[in-house]
Amino acid sequence: MAAGKLLYAQSGGVSAVINATAAGVIETARDKGIVVYAARNGILGALREELIDTTKEAKANIAALRHTPGGAFGSCRYKLKSLEENRAEYERLIEVFKAHDIRTFLYNGGNDSADTANKVSKIGQALGYEVSCIGVPKTIDNDLVVTDTCPGFGSVAKYTAIAVREASLDVASMMDTSTKVFIIEVMGRHAGWIAAAAGLAGSAAGDPPHVILFPENVFDPETFLAKVKATVEKVGYCTVVVSEGVKDQEGKFLAESGARDAFGHAQLGGAAPVLAALVREKLGYKYHWALPDYLQRSARHVASKTDLEQAYAVGKKAVEYAAEGLNAVMPVIVRTSDEPYKWKIEAAPLDKIANHEKKMPKNFISKDGFGITAAARRYLAPLIQGEAPPPYGADGLPMYVTLKNAPVPRKLKKFAIG
Amino acid sequence: MAAGKLLYAQSGGVSAVINATAAGVIETARDKGIVVYAARNGILGALREELIDTTKEAKANIAALRHTPGGAFGSCRYKLKSLEENRAEYERLIEVFKAHDIRTFLYNGGNDSADTANKVSKIGQALGYEVSCIGVPKTIDNDLVVTDTCPGFGSVAKYTAIAVREASLDVASMMDTSTKVFIIEVMGRHAGWIAAAAGLAGSAAGDPPHVILFPENVFDPETFLAKVKATVEKVGYCTVVVSEGVKDQEGKFLAESGARDAFGHAQLGGAAPVLAALVREKLGYKYHWALPDYLQRSARHVASKTDLEQAYAVGKKAVEYAAEGLNAVMPVIVRTSDEPYKWKIEAAPLDKIANHEKKMPKNFISKDGFGITAAARRYLAPLIQGEAPPPYGADGLPMYVTLKNAPVPRKLKKFAIG
Repeated sequence: MAAGKLLYAQSGGVSAVINATAAGVIETARDKGIVVYAARNGILGALREELIDTTKEAKANIAALRHTPGGAFGSCRYKLKSLEENRAEYERLIEVFKAHDIRTFLYNGGNDSADTANKVSKIGQALGYEVSCIGVPKTIDNDLVVTDTCPGFGSVAKYTAIAVREASLDVASMMDTSTKVFIIEVMGRHAGWIAAAAGLAGSAAGDPPHVILFPENVFDPETFLAKVKATVEKVGYCTVVVSEGVKDQEGKFLAESGARDAFGHAQLGGAAPVLAALVREKLGYKYHWALPDYLQRSARHVASKTDLEQAYAVGKKAVEYAAEGLNAVMPVIVRTSDEPYKWKIEAAPLDKIANHEKKMPKNFISKDGFGITAAARRYLAPLIQGEAPPPYGADGLPMYVTLKNAPVPRKLKKFAIG
Repeated sequence: MAAGKLLYAQSGGVSAVINATAAGVIETARDKGIVVYAARNGILGALREELIDTTKEAKANIAALRHTPGGAFGSCRYKLKSLEENRAEYERLIEVFKAHDIRTFLYNGGNDSADTANKVSKIGQALGYEVSCIGVPKTIDNDLVVTDTCPGFGSVAKYTAIAVREASLDVASMMDTSTKVFIIEVMGRHAGWIAAAAGLAGSAAGDPPHVILFPENVFDPETFLAKVKATVEKVGYCTVVVSEGVKDQEGKFLAESGARDAFGHAQLGGAAPVLAALVREKLGYKYHWALPDYLQRSARHVASKTDLEQAYAVGKKAVEYAAEGLNAVMPVIVRTSDEPYKWKIEAAPLDKIANHEKKMPKNFISKDGFGITAAARRYLAPLIQGEAPPPYGADGLPMYVTLKNAPVPRKLKKFAIG
């Protein structure tokens, strides 16, 4: 790698362990004597020249990133347009890199970020400014190809499986006179990875969850209601997991098909209450529903140790790859054994990752469409293994760190974004 | 105490630690050579003569109740009518007690259970059958009088404070381009204890939660929206905690005032989406909302150690009180010091507890109505102190126990309930 500084940016929805990746980046860079700047609020900070000097942070605070959820430097939802549509943005990035002698760019995100890192790597070459662009995987959606899994997913998976197990114990003890159907809505707009992970909560017949609704399947009210009824009659209660991405026969999100708010708008983020209303209307069972929303992806207190270790490892490896002179690659997780779970990190070209989407294999969903298969369990089970709780203060709360995020003095004029 | 067996029953909504109380009861009774029967599904099991022989459970499984959420023997929502209205039910209880030589009845629940235990103690005397009736406190609602707090509440309080802290870190890192208002709905139909506990998540100016909506206050859209707007402008985002019990100026639950489901019914359990719609309509901010529902009261994985110890202690003391010949009392928690938190268990007469409701003191809510005071912190802070995570299996999930719940052979005829 050429000398110079390293710029690290977080992109898209954050997770319980994305800061562990940041810790992996910064600690490894410090060991190598590389200065790390972070972009404030992701790629927007890079475009706006809002950079953070991480050398101003105490060692202990960088270490504390390992156990702090959210994005310590801020993230953003902002996709750079294509090179053809907005070449100025790419040129601006290179201008910022030049002004601050940034020779390595680590972009920590999902598919879009891999694509952006890939493009930046190319325009750097085209403009005669050598920069190592490394994509660093992160997404609770688990939809990056090539890598075995995406840091962030394992912890949501663990949270969800535990929530289903715990809430089901509650429902089971009250079913005689109270709730018979409990519905929990989980994230996953396009693929049912998180919904599938909920299936890890139980393994024996009758164990919850009894019904999983995947976005891979079109929602059919009749079979759903029949399954719920049969479960209540057999088990006494029924725990339903529904992915937010489930659509009805017309291709409309369930969440949009039912409730209207006081202003007559479709109410978003609520497939669970729509199902609850259906259960009440057609079966008459008492129900409850939960929608953990951000709680599921920020629940660092119950993160998966495996996920945490992988999040740290991809950050560390990204710096090592840059130091070795690699460009336009991503450190990916390669599974070498299911049981015991063994994995290693390898470099994969961003070309192979950007603009692809990993779907959940069809053979992960059971024949009746409401459960997971042995193949799914084999894949998912290792990802939630191990605990790595944060330290707690005397006040009984996790000790999460807030960095000071000292700004790097600007050197350039403002830039109009968009 | 007269010789004979002890009957233990769980009542009302369960919690993360009610089984710790069961463990305290059974382990203490075993030490004293007392046989413990448990009623299946609470008082209904006692009326139906559906009893469980806990002597059939292995010691390790009883110990595992300490870390298992839900109600191990089943609970129920069933309030015995008054003695005048349905004397037959009380007589049936005594009949069941007689048939199985039950000389101690421990009823583990909230206000209604204290009242029932009190009445049973009196009818036993009236019918010439001596039975020690002890109420054992349990309710996440924290609304029992006399006792400093109710086992179950501290763990929900801790869960809620952690959830607010974690989700707010998520929102804070995305606020530049994504969610600006995050709303989390918590339990508490009549009193804002859980909502207040959410306030423990932050202490410095600008810390979340920024707005707490208590059921003690009438919801005023104007001041709410003004506060949210001011917070977003100052802090960049706004975390709102809303109690499910919040009502509007007409005295209607917020949850009922807005959304209609596909069938035109008011949609219950959703004050958060109603607020979200209001924020969107009036302020135009991007929002997300969460409704953890049962997740909050079953989250044993993040229980408060203080709460757990108190839950166990009231179970243990209940048996000791019975052994000492006490009747119609409840072991209550007496706070002897705020900092460090010190407490002890004392016996209080059920007469003083039954049919009273502990309201949250007015001086717990800040002047503007949206936060908690120093007095609230002084009371609440100790209750979430300490961690007591369950053991986890190699599969990455908490190892919760399921008892075999061996039935006691029936001796009586069936009884028509209600």
